[in-house]
Amino acid sequence: TKRDSVTNLRRSYVRWTVQRIKKEKNVLGVWPLPQDFTSSMEQYPLNPHTFHFGYGKQSVAQRGCSVLDSAFKRYFSLVFPDYSSGRLHNEWTQIKDKPFTAEISVDHDHCDDYPNEESSERYNLSVSERKAVLNAETVWGAVRGLETFSQLVYQDDSGSYFVNKTEIVDFPRFQFRGILLDTSRHFLPVQTILKTLDAMAYNKFNVFHWHIVDDPSFPYQSCTFPNLSSKGAFHPMTHIYTQSDVRRVISYARLRGIRVLPEFDSPGHTSSWGKGQSNLLTPCYRSGIPSGTFGPVNPALPSTYQFMARLFQEVSSVFPDSFIHLGGDEVDFSCWRSNPDIRTFMQKMGFGVDFAKLQAFYMESIVNITSALKKTSIVWQDVFDYHKRVMVEVWRAGCYLCEVRKVAKAGLRVILASPWYLDQPGPTHDWARYYTVWPLAFKGTDKQKKLVIGGEVCMWGEYVDATNLTPRLWPRASAAAERLWSDERRTSNVDQAFPRLQDFRCKLVRRGIQAEPLYIGHCKHEFQGV
Amino acid sequence: TKRDSVTNLRRSYVRWTVQRIKKEKNVLGVWPLPQDFTSSMEQYPLNPHTFHFGYGKQSVAQRGCSVLDSAFKRYFSLVFPDYSSGRLHNEWTQIKDKPFTAEISVDHDHCDDYPNEESSERYNLSVSERKAVLNAETVWGAVRGLETFSQLVYQDDSGSYFVNKTEIVDFPRFQFRGILLDTSRHFLPVQTILKTLDAMAYNKFNVFHWHIVDDPSFPYQSCTFPNLSSKGAFHPMTHIYTQSDVRRVISYARLRGIRVLPEFDSPGHTSSWGKGQSNLLTPCYRSGIPSGTFGPVNPALPSTYQFMARLFQEVSSVFPDSFIHLGGDEVDFSCWRSNPDIRTFMQKMGFGVDFAKLQAFYMESIVNITSALKKTSIVWQDVFDYHKRVMVEVWRAGCYLCEVRKVAKAGLRVILASPWYLDQPGPTHDWARYYTVWPLAFKGTDKQKKLVIGGEVCMWGEYVDATNLTPRLWPRASAAAERLWSDERRTSNVDQAFPRLQDFRCKLVRRGIQAEPLYIGHCKHEFQGV
Repeated sequence: TKRDSVTNLRRSYVRWTVQRIKKEKNVLGVWPLPQDFTSSMEQYPLNPHTFHFGYGKQSVAQRGCSVLDSAFKRYFSLVFPDYSSGRLHNEWTQIKDKPFTAEISVDHDHCDDYPNEESSERYNLSVSERKAVLNAETVWGAVRGLETFSQLVYQDDSGSYFVNKTEIVDFPRFQFRGILLDTSRHFLPVQTILKTLDAMAYNKFNVFHWHIVDDPSFPYQSCTFPNLSSKGAFHPMTHIYTQSDVRRVISYARLRGIRVLPEFDSPGHTSSWGKGQSNLLTPCYRSGIPSGTFGPVNPALPSTYQFMARLFQEVSSVFPDSFIHLGGDEVDFSCWRSNPDIRTFMQKMGFGVDFAKLQAFYMESIVNITSALKKTSIVWQDVFDYHKRVMVEVWRAGCYLCEVRKVAKAGLRVILASPWYLDQPGPTHDWARYYTVWPLAFKGTDKQKKLVIGGEVCMWGEYVDATNLTPRLWPRASAAAERLWSDERRTSNVDQAFPRLQDFRCKLVRRGIQAEPLYIGHCKHEFQGV
Repeated sequence: TKRDSVTNLRRSYVRWTVQRIKKEKNVLGVWPLPQDFTSSMEQYPLNPHTFHFGYGKQSVAQRGCSVLDSAFKRYFSLVFPDYSSGRLHNEWTQIKDKPFTAEISVDHDHCDDYPNEESSERYNLSVSERKAVLNAETVWGAVRGLETFSQLVYQDDSGSYFVNKTEIVDFPRFQFRGILLDTSRHFLPVQTILKTLDAMAYNKFNVFHWHIVDDPSFPYQSCTFPNLSSKGAFHPMTHIYTQSDVRRVISYARLRGIRVLPEFDSPGHTSSWGKGQSNLLTPCYRSGIPSGTFGPVNPALPSTYQFMARLFQEVSSVFPDSFIHLGGDEVDFSCWRSNPDIRTFMQKMGFGVDFAKLQAFYMESIVNITSALKKTSIVWQDVFDYHKRVMVEVWRAGCYLCEVRKVAKAGLRVILASPWYLDQPGPTHDWARYYTVWPLAFKGTDKQKKLVIGGEVCMWGEYVDATNLTPRLWPRASAAAERLWSDERRTSNVDQAFPRLQDFRCKLVRRGIQAEPLYIGHCKHEFQGV
């Protein structure tokens, strides 16, 4: 009993793909698709008792490398899920298999560093009899390779593990592959963020864009301005991110090769800031007198810039990444316009009645503050119209490639978010919408196209919190993940991607990620739930 | 950074409602709204150490009544969540509060029965100093009253428990308040079903419509025909409901006053049946020869009716409810039409080429089988067009009240599902769509309106499994719950319902139900998640 006409159309299609999955079971393999992937039907058994990860002799990093030591531990559990969950398989303890070694080597020792925009994620993986060899320039590349290796391992019906002979050369298409979480419209418990970082690593995302504060709440607990969260958070004790929470998130992300990009959006989207910091927001006027409400940050007061300088100084030291997101979107000029002090300031500055100039002046000052702190600024595209110095994130709907082109033509770096707004729910069978996106399909020189450094999935928080974040994000974000990592020419066919994505979604479910189904069907191991 | 224009419109509205919640905190109370509810600001402290549920002296049921004994246990944990989760509150062990007793009395002993269509759910609840008195005709009414009582208890900031002086007289508007789960398009683990039964009880739903089998899979493990699941389930061992699973679901539901209504939909929607039962489905023909595909159940063979009689005999004894759902929807005639044996049979029966007559003949036979088994049949509205003897569930979109009216005019009982199809995701702020439904707003006599016995939320499984069922169902189904339980005149204002539903949704989250947020905001206790 269904009203959905798509159902019948899809029925035959699904039958076809199910057959296809069965046939290609062992080579469905890896999501996102590696750049160069050769595998054969030659299969090797893996026994958790005789398998181990180890450092190659020629590797610059050796035992004691935090990133790889902990990755070996994580991926051992991911490669042998039953085994780790305590469900012992009789065979394994009895059979004395010859050992299988996965040998990892890296060229550089970044074991104690943070991943950054120049970090190579390239790796080569070669699986043969009794041995897998994984070579990478950096530990971050090795972590990507371990993820790939874990996806190559499969179980037969009796629960035995296998991996096929495989050769992979892999590297990301785009340097910046982000997911935005909004922790202001709803507070997300730290556990929820960590779980998302896990799923990001499975999808080879490498930037967690933390839209940490906004109008509704200010959960970031600042050392310099503790009132911001004690007055601006939904609750001053239970709905905040302490310094230790933030460190935990950054460190958890680091071990997975994920950068944490903080956003402190201003001058708009700052209602919650005003609760803990008086004289920061613009008092709005009605009929010539203050109405009691407040607008964007007040750009006319020197105290504003002193406050911002101190706040960003703290933020710059707390968040190690060299990028910082300054927001700058959706500034409503009406409150500024109503305020006589603002108008006086504008006259003085020679802005006339052009409030865009006022906003440009404000953003310029903030960018100067963060530049002095050696940070690279990112702003939402709204700022690009009047300010052409910083990296731009394109988010508006419509002809987003027109905007990408304009920004690239101006010689600025671009991050594309428009096609990957996932905060509104949609039927999961619409996943292809997020897959059939061509970020470089605009007229431009090679140099201009290189300025498109990547893309980002945005999960705004109006309707999303810890209860529904995961099924709303995955597997739809996985479609974006492949677009951002893989070769576009080999991953543009939706029909070919469908069974692979179904298979990958089951892998996510097996790993405890509540990724929703794409269509009718089942996973060998269903989500057992809460 | 949002594209959603509704955001700004809603902002002021939400501020207003948040203020309202704060003011009315202690009387937001109960969802769905009781028929008659008086409460005052007079508040009484509750101490888990000195609180207990007990049977009233005049109660027909006494200690040893399975339904109430287990309800007392459940609701003790729900009334005192911190306490039960082990987080002891110093005060409680120190202060020697005077005891508070909740005394429950019922007029009839249905302790070992199943709830049925005639079960009264009426109850009176009176909360005064040191005492709550709950009177009901049946244990099912008492269970509803306990739910109400648990929602009346709240905690202050220090964690202490309180309840206000309250008088409630309550009963459901509709006798039949159902939720359909589809376990064929995706298999739902038993745990997921039980969790849904919990949430149903919190919402005072009383019918679990188990759409247990359909085209994609046959997970019901039949004693009589074990091949149906061993060949027709997604997996013969891990993706089935054993007899013991089914008993567990029925018993879990019973303790919560919930009926389990099984649906074995035929003659369409039966592809999976054919895998384990040969000669059951109609062979389709192409160019005069069998094409190898199969259509609906074959209505021309006597063996079909023998099979159905045996299957329904088993089903009737496994499922104690007096209702049974026979489906009958969306029968595609093209395969019947292609088959020469079917056409011969139709000639013999005098149906000519009217396949609706053939379907009517088939349904008539099945209804006769189930009538002989003393079951009341329900069918989807498709059957009503040619068969006017059984209860009808209206599901098609469009003017569903026209259909309701037609069925009621024909003197048949009606269940309304059309406005409550929740399987497709929608922005949660659309919850009001499921609230502003007026099931009796058709022209008809009082007697006709009484034939509308209730409504049902349908959660079809194309895009839904254990990963996303709960946030997709709740709190949208809660909107339907209030429509089906409460007085329409006092629950027709969306603005008044909004803060109450937000509050109730937080209660669900506190109880571990992954109900998604309605809009920006927070719960005191956020979902801590997986």
